Amino acid sequence: MPQKTIYLASDNFAPAHPQIMQAISEANQGHAPAYGLDAWTEHAEQVIREAFKSTCEVLIVPTGTGANVLALNLACRRHESVICTDIAHMNYQESGAAESIVGCKLLTVPHKEGKASPEDILKKLKSERAFGRHSTSPGVLSITQPTEVGTLYTLDELKILSALCKKENLLLHMDGSRLYNAIVQLKTSFHEMTEALPLDLLSLGGTKNGLMGAEALLIFNPSLRWAAGHLQKQNLQLLSKMRYLSAQYIPFFEKDLWRTLAQQANQKAREIASIIEATPQLSLSYPVQSNQIFFTAPSAWIPLIREKIFCYPWNEEKNEIRFIASWDTSEKDVLQVGSLFTELSKA
Amino acid sequence: MPQKTIYLASDNFAPAHPQIMQAISEANQGHAPAYGLDAWTEHAEQVIREAFKSTCEVLIVPTGTGANVLALNLACRRHESVICTDIAHMNYQESGAAESIVGCKLLTVPHKEGKASPEDILKKLKSERAFGRHSTSPGVLSITQPTEVGTLYTLDELKILSALCKKENLLLHMDGSRLYNAIVQLKTSFHEMTEALPLDLLSLGGTKNGLMGAEALLIFNPSLRWAAGHLQKQNLQLLSKMRYLSAQYIPFFEKDLWRTLAQQANQKAREIASIIEATPQLSLSYPVQSNQIFFTAPSAWIPLIREKIFCYPWNEEKNEIRFIASWDTSEKDVLQVGSLFTELSKA
Amino acid sequence: MPQKTIYLASDNFAPAHPQIMQAISEANQGHAPAYGLDAWTEHAEQVIREAFKSTCEVLIVPTGTGANVLALNLACRRHESVICTDIAHMNYQESGAAESIVGCKLLTVPHKEGKASPEDILKKLKSERAFGRHSTSPGVLSITQPTEVGTLYTLDELKILSALCKKENLLLHMDGSRLYNAIVQLKTSFHEMTEALPLDLLSLGGTKNGLMGAEALLIFNPSLRWAAGHLQKQNLQLLSKMRYLSAQYIPFFEKDLWRTLAQQANQKAREIASIIEATPQLSLSYPVQSNQIFFTAPSAWIPLIREKIFCYPWNEEKNEIRFIASWDTSEKDVLQVGSLFTELSKA
Amino acid sequence: MPQKTIYLASDNFAPAHPQIMQAISEANQGHAPAYGLDAWTEHAEQVIREAFKSTCEVLIVPTGTGANVLALNLACRRHESVICTDIAHMNYQESGAAESIVGCKLLTVPHKEGKASPEDILKKLKSERAFGRHSTSPGVLSITQPTEVGTLYTLDELKILSALCKKENLLLHMDGSRLYNAIVQLKTSFHEMTEALPLDLLSLGGTKNGLMGAEALLIFNPSLRWAAGHLQKQNLQLLSKMRYLSAQYIPFFEKDLWRTLAQQANQKAREIASIIEATPQLSLSYPVQSNQIFFTAPSAWIPLIREKIFCYPWNEEKNEIRFIASWDTSEKDVLQVGSLFTELSKA
Repeated sequence: MPQKTIYLASDNFAPAHPQIMQAISEANQGHAPAYGLDAWTEHAEQVIREAFKSTCEVLIVPTGTGANVLALNLACRRHESVICTDIAHMNYQESGAAESIVGCKLLTVPHKEGKASPEDILKKLKSERAFGRHSTSPGVLSITQPTEVGTLYTLDELKILSALCKKENLLLHMDGSRLYNAIVQLKTSFHEMTEALPLDLLSLGGTKNGLMGAEALLIFNPSLRWAAGHLQKQNLQLLSKMRYLSAQYIPFFEKDLWRTLAQQANQKAREIASIIEATPQLSLSYPVQSNQIFFTAPSAWIPLIREKIFCYPWNEEKNEIRFIASWDTSEKDVLQVGSLFTELSKA
Repeated sequence: MPQKTIYLASDNFAPAHPQIMQAISEANQGHAPAYGLDAWTEHAEQVIREAFKSTCEVLIVPTGTGANVLALNLACRRHESVICTDIAHMNYQESGAAESIVGCKLLTVPHKEGKASPEDILKKLKSERAFGRHSTSPGVLSITQPTEVGTLYTLDELKILSALCKKENLLLHMDGSRLYNAIVQLKTSFHEMTEALPLDLLSLGGTKNGLMGAEALLIFNPSLRWAAGHLQKQNLQLLSKMRYLSAQYIPFFEKDLWRTLAQQANQKAREIASIIEATPQLSLSYPVQSNQIFFTAPSAWIPLIREKIFCYPWNEEKNEIRFIASWDTSEKDVLQVGSLFTELSKA
Repeated sequence: MPQKTIYLASDNFAPAHPQIMQAISEANQGHAPAYGLDAWTEHAEQVIREAFKSTCEVLIVPTGTGANVLALNLACRRHESVICTDIAHMNYQESGAAESIVGCKLLTVPHKEGKASPEDILKKLKSERAFGRHSTSPGVLSITQPTEVGTLYTLDELKILSALCKKENLLLHMDGSRLYNAIVQLKTSFHEMTEALPLDLLSLGGTKNGLMGAEALLIFNPSLRWAAGHLQKQNLQLLSKMRYLSAQYIPFFEKDLWRTLAQQANQKAREIASIIEATPQLSLSYPVQSNQIFFTAPSAWIPLIREKIFCYPWNEEKNEIRFIASWDTSEKDVLQVGSLFTELSKA
Repeated sequence: MPQKTIYLASDNFAPAHPQIMQAISEANQGHAPAYGLDAWTEHAEQVIREAFKSTCEVLIVPTGTGANVLALNLACRRHESVICTDIAHMNYQESGAAESIVGCKLLTVPHKEGKASPEDILKKLKSERAFGRHSTSPGVLSITQPTEVGTLYTLDELKILSALCKKENLLLHMDGSRLYNAIVQLKTSFHEMTEALPLDLLSLGGTKNGLMGAEALLIFNPSLRWAAGHLQKQNLQLLSKMRYLSAQYIPFFEKDLWRTLAQQANQKAREIASIIEATPQLSLSYPVQSNQIFFTAPSAWIPLIREKIFCYPWNEEKNEIRFIASWDTSEKDVLQVGSLFTELSKA
C-alpha cells in the first residue's frame, strides 16, 4: 500500500479499538467450549439483547454478507424473491451470494438518495405479481440503514415501510452494517429503530465501528428461528473459537463504546462535509447523515486528491469520490483535507 | 374456459398440426429404447442439424424454461452472471428458475422495443465489473429472438452483439421459442441466424409453432458440450419415452412445416395489425414483425374486446393488450376482429 | 437398435396403449388455455382424486424425477435431509438432481430386498441427530413402492413406517412410478396404499404403465401445498400445452385401464418367473411381486440371453440380469423366453 | 460450563498461543486495505507458500467448513460428485453444506480405521459410473489427514490414492484441519505430504493448533484458480479486516510454532494413550497417531470419566469416548488422567 497521510477509504480499513483488543486478550484464558457454547458468547448475546430491549435470537457471525445470506435463507421460501434497491449491498457487492446460496431472485427498485420508496416497491410488487406462478412471489423487503450512499431513513419512513410490509405480506430485513451511525444521528434507540417498527431480521455490524471483526444476525420474528442454529453452520458462519468474536461485543455494548465511536466518525464526516460545501468546485452528491461522504470534483482534481488521500472513486464517469470517516479519523486528518482543498481551489 | 369465438391469447393455446399428430401416431410402434436412444430421436437430431447446417449437439426437452436453465447451467460458472433485458422471459416469467436452479444472478438492461442495446450492455458490464470480486463476473448475454414484444433483431444487430460478446468474453445465448417467425420474416436461414453469427447456445421452440409439445437446446460451441447429457437428466429434461417428443420434429423440418406454419401466423398478425392501424382509437405499441401484436385501446374498449376475443392484458395501467396469432388463426378470425373494431369505432 | 424378438428391457420401452393415443387425439381440438388451465387438466385431476378418494392437490408433470424433486422441494426445509435406501431411484439414478436442485442431503440405509427397515431408519436417525446443528435434520422418509428390485412393502409394513414417521417428525414420501403394479398385486386400493397410511406426498407414475408420457405429484398433506404451483413452474415441470399430458390420465382412470395394463404386466412377469424357477441354472434374486424380475445366470449364458432378449444387466459381477414385463408383453414373448431357457439348459 | 480440571474435549477449546495474540496486536496498527489487500495477508501467503515449497494460491478463510465448500465449488462441475468416507467431516459434521451450497452429491465409502481404501473407491466408481448420465460423474476424491479417528495415511498410501485419482480422472482434495499433527508424526514435510503427491486442493487448518481462528485453502492445481477470488467472497469466506486472520499465520510458520505446538499435542496424546493401554478395562479403538484418542470403557466408568474430564462420547452404544490433546495439554493433565484411571481400576 502506498504511504498516504490521510485514510478515508473505508471504515473497514480502521484498526480495532484498544478496548476491543483488551477484551479479546481477556477471553484468551484456558479452555472454553467451541461453536458458541462458551460464556463469552452467552454474555455477548445478553448485552446485545439488553441494548435492543428484545428477546431476539442473536447469531454472531464473521461476515456481513454471511449475516445477509443467513437472513434470506431463514426468511425466503423457495419460490420467494427479495425486493431491494439497485445499489443494495446484497445486490451489488456481495458477489451474487444471495442467488448462489439462497437461490432467490433479487428484485430491484431504483434508489432515491439511497432509499427504496414505497411507491417503487408497490409498483414492483404489482408487476411481479401480475404473472402469478410464472414469476416469483416477493417475500422479503430488504433495506439498508444507513443506505449505501450514507443517507438515513427517518423513523417515520421506516414505520411506513414496515406497515407496507405487513399489508403486503412481506418480511422486513434491515442491513445495518453501520446501524450505529444511524442511531446516534437520529438520536433514537436500537429498539425504536428495529423491533418497535416492527422489523423481522437485522444484520448488525460491528467491524466497521471499531471491532476487530464480528457481525451478528438478530432474529426478532419468532417464526423465523426454526433452524437458525443449523443454518448458521450450513451457511459457514459458525466459528469454532467463537469466544473471540463474541468477546468484542461485550465492552462495545456494556460501555457504550459503539456510541462513542459512531459519534466520532459522524462528527468527522460532518466536518469534512462542511469543508466540501465551502469549496465551490466541489459538490456533495447526497446529504451527509452518517459517516459516508459522496461528492463530485473537477476531473483534474481526482488524481491529486487520490495522491494525498486514500479513497475510492465511486462513479468515475461523474468524477464522484467516496470518503468514509472512521472512529479514528483525527482532527489532523480533517485539517489536512481542508488544506488540500484550499490549495486545489487556489491553483 | 368461457366460449369465445376468437382466440388470440397465445400460440400455446393452439392445437398441434395434424401432420404432427400423424408423426406421433407413427412413432407408437412396438418397443423402443428409452431416454433418447431410439431411432426417432436420432432422426430428429439429424433433421435439426441439417436445417441448421451444423454439427451442433441437440437436446430435445419438454419445456422452454428447461432449455434455458440447461443452457445457463452449461454456460455459467459459479461466479458468473447473465445479462438480459428486464422483460426477458428468463428474468420475468420463469418463476426464478435461473436463480433457483443455476444459482446465477441475472443482470438486466432496460429493453428498447424489446431489444438489448450494445450501449446498455457495455454500461452494465462496466458497472458490474467495477467492483471486481465483490460483484459477479458477467459470463453470458442472453437475447430473445423474436423479442418478448414481438420485434426482431436484424442480422446486423445480431452480428454486432455477437462481436461484442467475443470482445467482452461473454457467451451468447438465444432464447428462440418463436425463432421460426423471425426466420420467415427476415427471409434468412437458421444457419445465418445462429451459428454463423456465431452463437453459442440456442433454446429452440416448437410448441408455439404447431408441435404438440417439444423444445430443444442446440449447443453450437463445442466447449459447452462437456456434460450436456448428464445435465439434461439432472435438470429434469430427459424423458423416458423420448420418441414421442422427437417424432414431432421430423415432419416439422423434413417437410418445412415450420415455415408454412410460421408464415401463416405472421401473415395473420400483419392483417390484424393493419386493422389496428386503421382504427384511430387504437395504437400499436411496437412494430409488428412476427406473430405478436401489442396495442393500446380506450379503457372502455378493453372489457368489450376481452368479451369477444380470448386475449391477455399486457399492461393494465396503459390499457395495453397483447394479441398472438397462431398457425391456425383463420381468415374468419381476422374478419371478426375487423368487424369488432369497426363496430367499437362507430359506437 | 439391433432387432431382437423379445423386449424385456423396460416398461419405458413399451408403446402407449391405443386408448391413450385416442385420448390425445381427441384433446387436439381447437384452442385451450395453456399451463394447466384447460378442461382436460381439470378433468384429469378430478379422476385422479376420485381414484384416490382424496381431495389432494394433483400436479401433472412430464418426468418422474421432476415429481420427486418437486416433492422434496415442498417437503424439505433448507437444513433438512431425506432418508432413503441406497438403491432408491432418487439416490442412485436421478443424476444428483435432489442435491443439485433441492440442495438436500440424502441419507441412505442399506436396502433389504429393496426395502428400508424401521430398525435401519431409526439407527440412521440416531447417528445423524447425535451431532445436532453440525449434521442435518432428517425431515423426510422416501420409500419406493414397488421397490427398485420389484418387491412390495405390505400395507402393514407401510403403516409401521408411517407411524414411525409421525413419531419421529418425518414427512413420508412414496415414489410410485409403478404403483399400479403394487395395487393390483396387493389387491388393495389407491386410498389404502396412500392417504390412509397416512402418506404426505406421492410421485405417481403412468408412463411405465401404458401412457405416452405423464407423471403426477399428489400432495395429501395440506400444509405442503403452499407453493406447489410456483414450484411446478420453477422446477421446470409445468408444460404449456398441458392438455396432452392430462388427457392421457382420463381413460386411464375412468376406464380402469391402469388396472388392466398392470395386471397384464404382472401376469407375464409371474409366468416368466415360473420359467426361471423351473430352470436349474437360473436363480431369482428377489421374490417377483410386480413386473420386475431379477435373476442370476451362468456367465456363459449372459451374452446368449442378451442376443435374443433386449434386457439390461443389473449387477455384472454377480451375472445378474433384470427383466421387466410391460402391459404389451405377449404370450408369444413368454413362450420364446421359455424356449430359449430350455434350449440353453440342454446345451 | 461446569468447572472441570481436565479439558480433553477438543483442540478447538484451547486458547490461542501467546505468540499468536502478540501477532494480532501488532497487526492492529493504523489503517490497512480491507478484503485481503493488506501487507499481513501478503506476508502470510508468502510464508505459507515457503513452508509448502509451492507457488500455490492461498486463500485465508474463517472456517474449515468454508475451506471445504470453497474447494468443492472450485473442483466440481455441476454434474460431478465427491467420494469420501462415511465419517468424513464434510459428509457427517458440516450440516449438509456441500449439498446445500455446492449442490454436489457425496458418495461415501466405509472407512477402514478412518481411511478410504483404493478397493472401496474403485468399487464405488464402478457402481456409480454403471448408470452413465442417470447417475453422477465422480469428480473429486476428498480425504482427511489425519482422519476423523486420528489415524494417518502413510505417504505411500497417499501416493497410491493420488495415482488412482490421476488414472480415474478425479481431483484429489485433502481436508487437513489437523495436518500439522500428521506432519510431525510422519516426520515429513508439507511439500511431501501435499503438492508432491500430487494433491490438487488442501483445506489447511490452524485454529486447532493454537491459532485464535484462521484456516486456509491452498490451490496447487493451477487449473482450479479460475475464480478463487470471486468464490471466496460468494462463499462468505472473505473477511473485510483480513489482516487479523493473516497475521496469525506469520509467526506460526516463520518461527515453526506450528511444529512445536503439534509435537506437544501429539506427545501428550501418546502419554495418555499409554495410560489407557496400561488400564485393562480400557481399550483403544484405533492406533493413536496424532492428537486424537478413541477408546472404549466400562459403561459404569463413563459418567465418572465425564465428571472429571471435559470430553465427548463418540459412540454411546459402544461406550466409546474421544479425547483430544491440545497444544496446551499439560503434564499435570496427563498425571490427573493417570490418577483417575488408576483409581477407577481399583474401585
